[in-house]
Order: sequence, then C-alpha cells, then structure tokens
Amino acid sequence: MSTLTPDILSTLEQQGIELPSWAFGNSGTRFKVFTTPGTPRDPFEKIADAAEVNRVTALAPSVALHIPWDKVDDYAVLRRHAEDLGVALGTINSNTFQDDDYKFGALTHEDAGVRRKAIDHHLECIDIMDATGSRDLKIWLAEGSNYPGQADLRGRQDRLHESLQEIYARLSGEQRLVLEYKFFEPAFYHTDVPDWGTSYAQVAALGDRAMVCLDTGHHAPGTNIEFIVMQLLRLGKLGSFDFNSRFYADDDLIVGAADPFQLFRIVYEVIRGGGLNNPDVAFMLDQCHNVEKKIPGQIRSVLNVQEMTARALLVDAEALRAAQVSGDVLAANAVLMDAFYTDVRPALAEWRESRGLPADPMAGFAASGYQEKIEADRVGGVQAGWGA
Amino acid sequence: MSTLTPDILSTLEQQGIELPSWAFGNSGTRFKVFTTPGTPRDPFEKIADAAEVNRVTALAPSVALHIPWDKVDDYAVLRRHAEDLGVALGTINSNTFQDDDYKFGALTHEDAGVRRKAIDHHLECIDIMDATGSRDLKIWLAEGSNYPGQADLRGRQDRLHESLQEIYARLSGEQRLVLEYKFFEPAFYHTDVPDWGTSYAQVAALGDRAMVCLDTGHHAPGTNIEFIVMQLLRLGKLGSFDFNSRFYADDDLIVGAADPFQLFRIVYEVIRGGGLNNPDVAFMLDQCHNVEKKIPGQIRSVLNVQEMTARALLVDAEALRAAQVSGDVLAANAVLMDAFYTDVRPALAEWRESRGLPADPMAGFAASGYQEKIEADRVGGVQAGWGA
Amino acid sequence: MSTLTPDILSTLEQQGIELPSWAFGNSGTRFKVFTTPGTPRDPFEKIADAAEVNRVTALAPSVALHIPWDKVDDYAVLRRHAEDLGVALGTINSNTFQDDDYKFGALTHEDAGVRRKAIDHHLECIDIMDATGSRDLKIWLAEGSNYPGQADLRGRQDRLHESLQEIYARLSGEQRLVLEYKFFEPAFYHTDVPDWGTSYAQVAALGDRAMVCLDTGHHAPGTNIEFIVMQLLRLGKLGSFDFNSRFYADDDLIVGAADPFQLFRIVYEVIRGGGLNNPDVAFMLDQCHNVEKKIPGQIRSVLNVQEMTARALLVDAEALRAAQVSGDVLAANAVLMDAFYTDVRPALAEWRESRGLPADPMAGFAASGYQEKIEADRVGGVQAGWGA
Amino acid sequence: MSTLTPDILSTLEQQGIELPSWAFGNSGTRFKVFTTPGTPRDPFEKIADAAEVNRVTALAPSVALHIPWDKVDDYAVLRRHAEDLGVALGTINSNTFQDDDYKFGALTHEDAGVRRKAIDHHLECIDIMDATGSRDLKIWLAEGSNYPGQADLRGRQDRLHESLQEIYARLSGEQRLVLEYKFFEPAFYHTDVPDWGTSYAQVAALGDRAMVCLDTGHHAPGTNIEFIVMQLLRLGKLGSFDFNSRFYADDDLIVGAADPFQLFRIVYEVIRGGGLNNPDVAFMLDQCHNVEKKIPGQIRSVLNVQEMTARALLVDAEALRAAQVSGDVLAANAVLMDAFYTDVRPALAEWRESRGLPADPMAGFAASGYQEKIEADRVGGVQAGWGA
Repeated sequence: MSTLTPDILSTLEQQGIELPSWAFGNSGTRFKVFTTPGTPRDPFEKIADAAEVNRVTALAPSVALHIPWDKVDDYAVLRRHAEDLGVALGTINSNTFQDDDYKFGALTHEDAGVRRKAIDHHLECIDIMDATGSRDLKIWLAEGSNYPGQADLRGRQDRLHESLQEIYARLSGEQRLVLEYKFFEPAFYHTDVPDWGTSYAQVAALGDRAMVCLDTGHHAPGTNIEFIVMQLLRLGKLGSFDFNSRFYADDDLIVGAADPFQLFRIVYEVIRGGGLNNPDVAFMLDQCHNVEKKIPGQIRSVLNVQEMTARALLVDAEALRAAQVSGDVLAANAVLMDAFYTDVRPALAEWRESRGLPADPMAGFAASGYQEKIEADRVGGVQAGWGA
Repeated sequence: MSTLTPDILSTLEQQGIELPSWAFGNSGTRFKVFTTPGTPRDPFEKIADAAEVNRVTALAPSVALHIPWDKVDDYAVLRRHAEDLGVALGTINSNTFQDDDYKFGALTHEDAGVRRKAIDHHLECIDIMDATGSRDLKIWLAEGSNYPGQADLRGRQDRLHESLQEIYARLSGEQRLVLEYKFFEPAFYHTDVPDWGTSYAQVAALGDRAMVCLDTGHHAPGTNIEFIVMQLLRLGKLGSFDFNSRFYADDDLIVGAADPFQLFRIVYEVIRGGGLNNPDVAFMLDQCHNVEKKIPGQIRSVLNVQEMTARALLVDAEALRAAQVSGDVLAANAVLMDAFYTDVRPALAEWRESRGLPADPMAGFAASGYQEKIEADRVGGVQAGWGA
Repeated sequence: MSTLTPDILSTLEQQGIELPSWAFGNSGTRFKVFTTPGTPRDPFEKIADAAEVNRVTALAPSVALHIPWDKVDDYAVLRRHAEDLGVALGTINSNTFQDDDYKFGALTHEDAGVRRKAIDHHLECIDIMDATGSRDLKIWLAEGSNYPGQADLRGRQDRLHESLQEIYARLSGEQRLVLEYKFFEPAFYHTDVPDWGTSYAQVAALGDRAMVCLDTGHHAPGTNIEFIVMQLLRLGKLGSFDFNSRFYADDDLIVGAADPFQLFRIVYEVIRGGGLNNPDVAFMLDQCHNVEKKIPGQIRSVLNVQEMTARALLVDAEALRAAQVSGDVLAANAVLMDAFYTDVRPALAEWRESRGLPADPMAGFAASGYQEKIEADRVGGVQAGWGA
Repeated sequence: MSTLTPDILSTLEQQGIELPSWAFGNSGTRFKVFTTPGTPRDPFEKIADAAEVNRVTALAPSVALHIPWDKVDDYAVLRRHAEDLGVALGTINSNTFQDDDYKFGALTHEDAGVRRKAIDHHLECIDIMDATGSRDLKIWLAEGSNYPGQADLRGRQDRLHESLQEIYARLSGEQRLVLEYKFFEPAFYHTDVPDWGTSYAQVAALGDRAMVCLDTGHHAPGTNIEFIVMQLLRLGKLGSFDFNSRFYADDDLIVGAADPFQLFRIVYEVIRGGGLNNPDVAFMLDQCHNVEKKIPGQIRSVLNVQEMTARALLVDAEALRAAQVSGDVLAANAVLMDAFYTDVRPALAEWRESRGLPADPMAGFAASGYQEKIEADRVGGVQAGWGA
C-alpha cells in the first residue's frame, strides 16, 4: 500500500463508472457480428451481467439503458431487479438510427413528420427516465449525409436546435440532456454534430441542464482530447464521458487499451479541472467487445480507469507547478511521467482485499463460475445485439 | 466534339470497368442496413442490373462475383445468362470474414485446420474461375487483431505466405491472384496486409501471376495514392483497382465523389505509366450505395471514371515535360489543371449519341422503366446483402 | 459569356481578396528557405508587388501587414504609397512568435511581464491600425507546449482570456479583433487555440467585435471545413478567412491547389450562409510560395478563388432544394457537381477583357516586364522573409 | 533488482544507442529557432556533449555525423577526440537539402549536372566514412514536389535508382547504405521516398548492403509502426532506426514522450524479430530539442529506450504464446500490459549504481557542473544549427 496515500484511496473509493447495457450484447462490424455463448437475451440479463462487474470491482454502480433495445413493460420491475443486484439504472440513451424513416435524418430531417417521430421518441425516453429515476438523457445522433449537396447543412443545424429545444423543455427536476458529438460514421460526408464546438454551441443555446458528452473515440486523428476536457470543464459544460479507445476511427476498444498515456492525460485534466467525483461529470463506458469476452472486457475497462486515476492522483502538483513556472520543460514532463510509470497495481490489489473484494477482479470473476453458469443457462431465445 | 480528339475517343472506346455484383445488393454500416425496393435476390438478378449499367454506358462489360454470396449450382448457366445480357463474368472474390471459424484469422490462423478450410475455400474459388472463365482471383483479407498482444504478427505473416503459396500453385493458364491491402477495418489494431508494401512483398514472393490490388479507399489519411500507382506500375505489380472514394476511412462512396481531383491524378498516373487499357491492370468498382439508388449509383460511377479519363487524356504531355524540365512550377501545374478544368461532358454526350447510347445515361436509365419494373417484379424472397 | 449571367458577373465584380504582404517575401521550411531574385526588401516593395496582382486581376484591393515585419516610420507615407498604387492597407497581423521572450508563450505566459510585453505589442498594432485605417487586428498565436506537463493548459486559457480582454478594450469605432485557430505547429503537444470551438468560446467572451478567423489549412486531417464555415456564419462569428491549401499539415500552398472541390464546397457554404461580399467576412490569402514564383503565385490564387466563386454561383439553388427535400441523393449531388464541372474560364476571360483587364492575368503579368524589372532593380539590401 | 533477471540485465548491458551530433545544436521550426547558452560551435564540442551523455548512462557509445555540418579538416583528429572521450564516430548522414541547386531535387533532379553534384556529395561522404571508420551511410532525401504536375513522379523514381546505384557501387568492405523514408515535409505534394515500400523496393534493387532506415516519426497518422518493424526484420532489410516521437507530423520530440506504449510495442517487435543487439539493426536517435535543454534531452531519450527495452524483455513469451494460440484475447493483451506497467526504474537505478553509474543519470548530469561549464566557456563564435 506504499504508493497510494489514504487520501488517494478515499478518492478512489468514491469513483463510479457507469456501464452500458449494450456492451453485454453482441456487436461487430459491417462485415460480421460474432456471437458468443451466454450473451444476454433481455435487459434483465444484461443488468445481471453488469452487476457482476460491480460485484468484483465495486466500481460500476449503475447501468445505462438504450431505448428501444432495453424497453420493458414495467420499469419499476427492472429498477428493483437492478437494485436487488446492487446497481442503479443510469443514463437513458435514445436511438434514432435504426428506423427506416431515419435514413436521411431524425431531429434534423427535412420532413416535419419524421422530426415529430424523433422528438416523440426522446419524450418517451424522458418518460422512462421518470420511471427509472435516471438523471441523464444522452443523445447521440447518427445524422448526416454521404455526398456533398445531399443535405442542407445550415437548415439541418437550425432544425436540430428546434428539435432539441422541444426535448429540453420536457426535462424536469434534476434531469439533464447530454449531447454527444462524433467526427464521422455512420455518415461519411457530413455529420450534424461532428465536434465539441457544435455540441457546445447547441447545448449552450438550450440552457444550464444541457451539457456536452465527450466520447473519447469520436475525434479526428491527432486531436488533443485532454485539451477539450480542460476547455469543457472551464466552460462548465462537460456533462459526461463515453470512455473507450481507438487506433483509427471509432474502434470502440477497451478504454486505455490503445494509448494508456492518453487516458492518463485525460484523467489528469479531469482532476486538474475539478471533474473527478463531481456529480456534474458522469463517467461511462461505451465500448464494443467484438472479439473478446464481454464481462471480463468490462471488468478490464473499469480497472483501467481506476488504475489510471490512481496514477493521475499521484502527480506531484507542487513540483509540477514549480517546474511549469520556471520553464523547466524536462522537469515538468518528468513529474507527469513519474506518476504515469508508477506501478499502482500491487497497492490497489492490497486495498481491494482490505475491502473484501478480489485482489484481482479478473481472476475473481473467472473463479466465480458465473460465465459457465450463463453459458449453460442462456440457451434459446435471441441474443441481444444492435439489431442493425 | 471540340475538346476530344479522335485518338482520345478511340482510347475511351476501349475502356471497360468491371462492376461488383455486391454493389447491387444492400449494404450499410454497423448501425443499420437500409433496404430498397427492387434489390436483387440472387446472382442472376444482380447480373441483370449490372448489364443495365452497361446497356446505357457501354462501359461495364463484366461483373465480378463474390463467393459464397454468388454461388450457383451451375456456373455455365450463369455465364450464359450474363452473355445473353451482353456482359461477361469477371473477377472471383473470395470471402474469409463471415464464418465463425475466422474470428481470429483465416489464411493466417494459428490453427492448421482453419487455414486448411480457408485455403480450400480459395481452391473452390479457382474451380469456379475455371467454370466461369474468370481470369482473376481477388483476395481481400479481413484478418488482423484488435488488441496488442492478441496476435503474433510475424507468425501470421509467415503463415500467410504459406497459404498463398498453396493457392497460387493451383492457378493455371492465364489465371492470376491479386492481393488487396487495407489500412484498417474490420480489425482495429493490426491488419495482416495493411499497406502496398506488404502486398507487394507477399505477391513478389509468389511469382509473376501474383499482383497487387489497389483499393482507392484503403489508405492512411493523406496518402498520395497516385504515387503508389506509379510505383506499382514501375515494379510491374499493379494488377487491379478497386475504385471508390472516401472522406475519412473506407467509406466506399462513389468513385470521384469525395475528391475528383485525386481521381484525375490517379488516372493521369495510370496513363503516364502505361496502365490504361492494359489488360494487366483491371479497372473495377468496389462501392457501397448505402443511401443512394444502386443502379444509378453504378452508372454515375463508371461515368465519373470515363469523364476523368477523358480529362486526363487531355493533358498536354509536351507542355508538361517542358515546364517540368525548366522548373516552372506554376506552368507545370497549370498544364494539369487546364485539363482537369476542361468540361468534357458535352463532347462525351455527343459522342455517346453517335454510338447509339443515351447522351445522358442517368436520364436514359431513368426513362427506361427498368427501376419501376424490378420494384414491381422483385417481391418476396430475401434481398441480397452482405449477410453480416 | 454564355455560362455566367449578369447577376453572377455583378456579384463577382464586388469580390475582393486581401493579399498578405509576407507572401511576397521569402518563406520556406525548417530545412531551407530558398531565395529568389526580385524579392522585396521593405514594405513599400511588398505593396508594389501586391498592387501588381490587383492591376492584372482587379481582385486584390488591399494588403495585410505583419508587425513588426512591416513596421515603418510613417504609416501615412505607406498608406499614400498604397493608395497611389490603387490598393488599401488592410488587416494588421501581430507577431508573438519571434522574440526569445515568447519561447514559452506570450498572451498566455506564466510571467506577467511577458504577457505585458505581448499585450503591449498588440496595443501598438492597434495604434498602427489607427494610422493605417485598418479595420481588423488578426491574432494568430503560436503558443503551446511540446511535452505533456510542460504547461498548465487551464491556467493558460484563463490568462489568454484576460490578455485578449485588455487588447479588445483598446479597439475603437469599427475596429475588430479576429482570433485565428490552428491545429498544431509550431507547438507539437498542445496549442492554446487549436480549434474553432476554442476560438469561438474566447471571442464570444469578448464581445460583438471579436470574431473567428478560419485558416483553411489549420485543421485535423479529414475535417469538414465547410461545415465550420456554415456553423460560424450561423453563429455570426465568421470574421475572416485565411485561404491556402494543404495535403498534410499547414502546407500553405496556393488556395485550391490541393483539393479544388473542397474550395468549391467552402465557397458554396459561404454563399449559402450570406457570407459572400459581406463586409463582416474578410477574404484573405495566407500562403507561402516556397518553390514557385511569388507574384504569379498570388495571381493564380486570387484567380482560383474567383473561378471557384463563379462555379459556386452557378449552383441551381432551386433544383438543389427540390432534390434535398425529396431525398434524391444522386440528383442533389449532381446539381452541385454540375456547377463544379462547368468550365467558367472562357466566360471569365471574356468578361475580364470587357473590363479592360488581361483575359489571362498570368500571361498579362508575364508580358508586363514587371518581374524582369524588379529582378534588375532590387539588388543589394536584405530580402524580406520571416526572420526566423 | 527484483524485477530484472541477470539475463535481462546482461542483454541491457549490450545496448547501444547512437546519438546525432546535430541534436546538440540549435533547431526549431520555420517560425523560430530559439538559441541556448552553451550550444556547441563545432563538431568537437558536439562530440564532447554526446560523450557526456554516454558518461552518465553507458548507453550512447557512438555519435552520428552530418555532412557538411560536421566537416573538419582532419577526421583522424576528430576520431581521436571522440575516442579520448570514450565514444566512436558512427553513421555518416548526407545532406542534399540546403543548397540552392537542390530546390527541385538532388538524386532525382531533371538536370544531370545537379544529380552529379548530389552523387559526388555522397561519394565524399563515403570518403569520410573511410576516414572515420563509419559503417553506415544514411540517406534521407528531402526531394519531392509541392504541386501536382510539378514533377514527373516516375522519371524521378528511375533516376533515384540510377543515382543510388552509383553511390552503392562506391561502398566497400562492411559499409552499408541505409535509405530513410518520410511521409511528407519539406515537400508537400509528393515525396520521392514516402513510405517503407518505396525504400524497400529501392534498396532491394541495390543489393545486400542496402537497407531501410525507419524513422519513427515519418509515417501517416495511425500507421502501425511495429508492423513495419516486423515486416522489415522478416524481409531482412531493417538497417536502422531513427528514434523520436510525434503527436502530429515529424515533430521530432523525445523518443517515448508522445506515446510510450507505442515505443514499447516497437521494441517488443524488435526483440520478437531478433533485432535487439543485432549489429544489422542500428539504434539511433534523431530528435530536435527546440524548447528543452539538449544534453538532458538526449539523456532522457536513451533512458527512455533503455527502460522500454527492459519492460519489453519482461514479456512472458510462453504465457503470451499460450494465450495467442488459444484465442484468449484478454489474456494475451494482459501479458503485454503486465510487462509495460511494471515499474523497472528502481531496479535499473540499482543496477546502474552497481556499475559505477549515477542511479539517476539526469541528476548525475545536473550535479556534474558540465552545463554550467559549457555555458561559461562557449562564448563567442557561431552556435551550431541546421543552417536553414
């Protein structure tokens, strides 16, 4: 426990990372979706899997739902199911990319009828939020166009504002709207919310409870993501993270897998800007486990965030400031690298044990027999997936 | 007919661009595949649609098949069907990305049994080539890994060589193997044939009838593709093109849609290197019409290639050389731009009419009633798609 | 004159593109700056060269100055010199990247003394604006850091705001501040104003007369620049363009040279958003003629903008809307491409002649003997350059 | 010393990384070159600085020279100077980018006279190699063009081959030619050796003693560099590394600074392919210390390579193979990450002390007074730089 102070451990103890229900279903590429035994067939099974991640890590206290994939008849039942398993229902994610009507847009569509349908879908999502007790409505828009001229960029932006306004107006109490941006895909020429600037301009025009969602895989090559984290925290508009990692595009790999140092820098900037364990800034995963096992994939992911948070908390802030002020480039960089290169894993393992958790949650899960059980039990039915 | 000389027109008359059967089926992204009325249900209908493109353009004399998507009981029947419609069966494309066995590789798989299966699939493809009279076996490998460590890069490269050797040995007569490379997708950490250098090294190790296939959408951002065209022609290893265009990744948009000037430069380098109307260099399309109509999309595509070829043929070679030799940067660039900016469309329209083709093939197709007919006729059955 | 209507010609007649004085001096890369005979030695000679561009094109009515490169004892004299040659003095560009004090920042520096110096430099620039009658103060900041940890991103952003506020407060009358953003270079880890979102947030916090400057070469690979044009026009914050083109990074090539279709789309979005011939949106060049001749390079550049504007004005807005509304992807794209592929050069040449200008300004300049004259006259002295 | 076995330490003891003499001179961007007190004025002082890096690390036994920057009257004297300081003279780097004659190319120039001059420069470099006892002639070519049409890509490639052939023929004994490739800069449209494939094709056409040099900063965004390392080792053509790191372009930052995990993967692939401590594969640095102190910058760099090599040597090869063979994606990745996350620094510090080296070479250098001494001594004269 040498490297991690009680202060750091107490900070880590408060950390919670929301899991996406859809990470437990099948996902893939346009070329192939590989299936795996034990994959959940319904929202109840997804939540059970998510709760298992929390059981061995104490890091994943809530589960985000995706509508309509996670629609159920009675959300009170689903909520009790989750609570019985020790987790809460979290963010509600809308879906405007899987209906034929949305081929040319949803909230931005030229046709008022299609916009109506898309707005109504979001209003239904808010109804579900009322039932589940969820705070956040997360909107990721697949809208855009594939060919220059296909769409009127400006008109779409204006219609987007109108549609969002109507959705925003329906929120009540503590509820928030978080608007995700994405560089490209599934549209290949233009995307209606392609960058943080657009998301920021749109949510700023809505009001205080509209925030930006930063998905770490949704940027142009070479983008300095921690800079955006800093800026959005400074502007008071960082509402949530969708964590994952990427080498090329929106690869949706396990967070920290592609560039661990980038994750470190992002978490460092979160801490620097007061965003850690700040209820305004939700930490979520949004990943696809196309080739790896899903539950262990999620365990690995939350551990990566925890380990990197521990490292970022080790940064010697005073030494860093001194080096920055004096213009000592190498010393300043060394302070950061010193924290990054510190191996926090033994201390975290010891600490976990002291809290009644498996020292190695990956091994703990493997030894639990849970995977074997679901593979045996979940026979028949239709495995959950994106339904693309 | 002012801008295009008889020489240029006679060169254009020889041009042929192979169409991919799968472009007439449904395609999409991991998020959604939109379907359209009239989509073919079998290889016969795909070929009928391809023949329609050729009917109005005289530019698409052959159709590439994809195995197993285009498997039929009797290829002689399919061949006759094509010939009756005025087109030939062309390149055979293999598929090693849609079987569960191939989750971790096919020709590169750690398991000899899986490699055997993948090699046998290619041998079957060559059997089909024997039956269809196709010259080229095109291999695009979806193989790779998503996480560092997942795969042994070196071992896979060696096994790839062995597998390809066995396939290559089965070719006979004029048959060729063309090996496609791709920067990324569906694998996100490493791809076994990611760049032209790897494809070149692999086919050079096989023999004279193994060539590189250059897909214009399969490069890193910023790659100078015409340079690669030049180099592969120089090395005698440019076997074929898969034409399409992209803004970001492998968007598979209509060729010339994203960056017409790039297409011009590519075609110019083809001409410069002796690759135009050279049987060694096959021109093919490989596109996905996710949101636009498929047959018109293919018509637009072959017209784009034809128009850009006409422009590239207008480059004043003598003036260009003079400017290059004298180091007159602006003059040399101006020679190229002058050809690019020349509007060849009126002359091409006139020429088409003189050959009994519609002056405007897009309008010609629209007026033909073909689309309405297939929408009415092709009811029931399963629309062709990627089967992902 | 067939393709261009009187309305279009009258619109084109109003077009003005500001030239940067520094384009006439030497520039290069970190590896080498090649010099050329006839290069100006002082601001007077630069303005003479710029006036020559205007003389043969009637497209370049003003010249941007760079301080301190273009400092003179008496700006009234410089202004008269310009006016005598038929051009006006335009935007004043500040420089905070060439003094040793600015190694670790200027307006963002940790040290209040360095910030003071940098602010004072900008106040001096405004004094010069008062003397030259310039409206715009353009600020491009080279500030950033090369290594993670080197700089406190957040503190710098806050100090940037404070510094800009003091500069902004000094503006009077119609004067404006335009803040440029740049993805990277000369800093390689972080840049203090890296994207339009940051520039927008900073200028929005200043006031109505603070605007964003969009340099077409300052974006991440693959960025849809016309989308940003649309968004900034929509937000009322597009203050000016720095036109140039690039294949890779901030290559500063001749506008339209790398991707003419992109320039077309940008100009189309300017027109769509009401930004053409709108005094709020200044058109400027910012290019480096490293290997080509400088005056002809500038002539080529303004002609490229003019030709592309003519093409963009040809877009059939009604047909485009109809296709967009009906979801006819190919038809909508065709409307745009039809305008892009129209060869407007003959009509423009004819129109130029009718206005007493050379039909071909490149040839007109070459025939004028100006280049030979300056090569003979400008012997001795120190050629202007960046002084890096 | 717990983490590092005697085997690993003995492997590390053999490691040598060549330093570039020019890293001790001033460098910068096209915007500004900042100077620093104590910068060497001649090759003797550069070598003295390089020897200091070796003194505190025992990692840098040789120094690469750049001609003409490091030309001296008597190379025997320079060689003795180096040997007296405990280092050897290493690779000779040619320069064909700083002479006005090379504006449009050197080895590829249209003009035979310019090619002659460039070839002769390389022959002179080989003369110097004979005098210094250097084995490798490293050729990085700045050649290319800025505008489409400016250059005849194909003719240049052919001339490059001819020029290289003449240079290669002059090599004797163990001497080698290593040909570097670079994606872009200083040319912005095309570069004559832009990728590993071109370098490979060119050196393969020369002979066994012609190899590829891989500069880790010379690739397109997103390129999987370790894959290229694997491939070149497999093809027997990896001649040397130029180590540095980058966020965007050829940033030339300290190796490992931008993406430490990428450096780990590269070194792992070197080990996997038998390239570590293999005389065929030279490890060199090629960096620019634009804002940080130069000697400490080089110390930091060789330590980064050493630390990452230690981590890569910790990979449990057996466990990795088992996981790869069984298709256990997460387990295989974990084996790699486990090594990467191990903090080898304490063990390395202890080991250094046991060898009579400073436990912390950065601190050791700082305490040595060397920097203060050169700042006091090196007054007057012209500081070394790129002379751009």
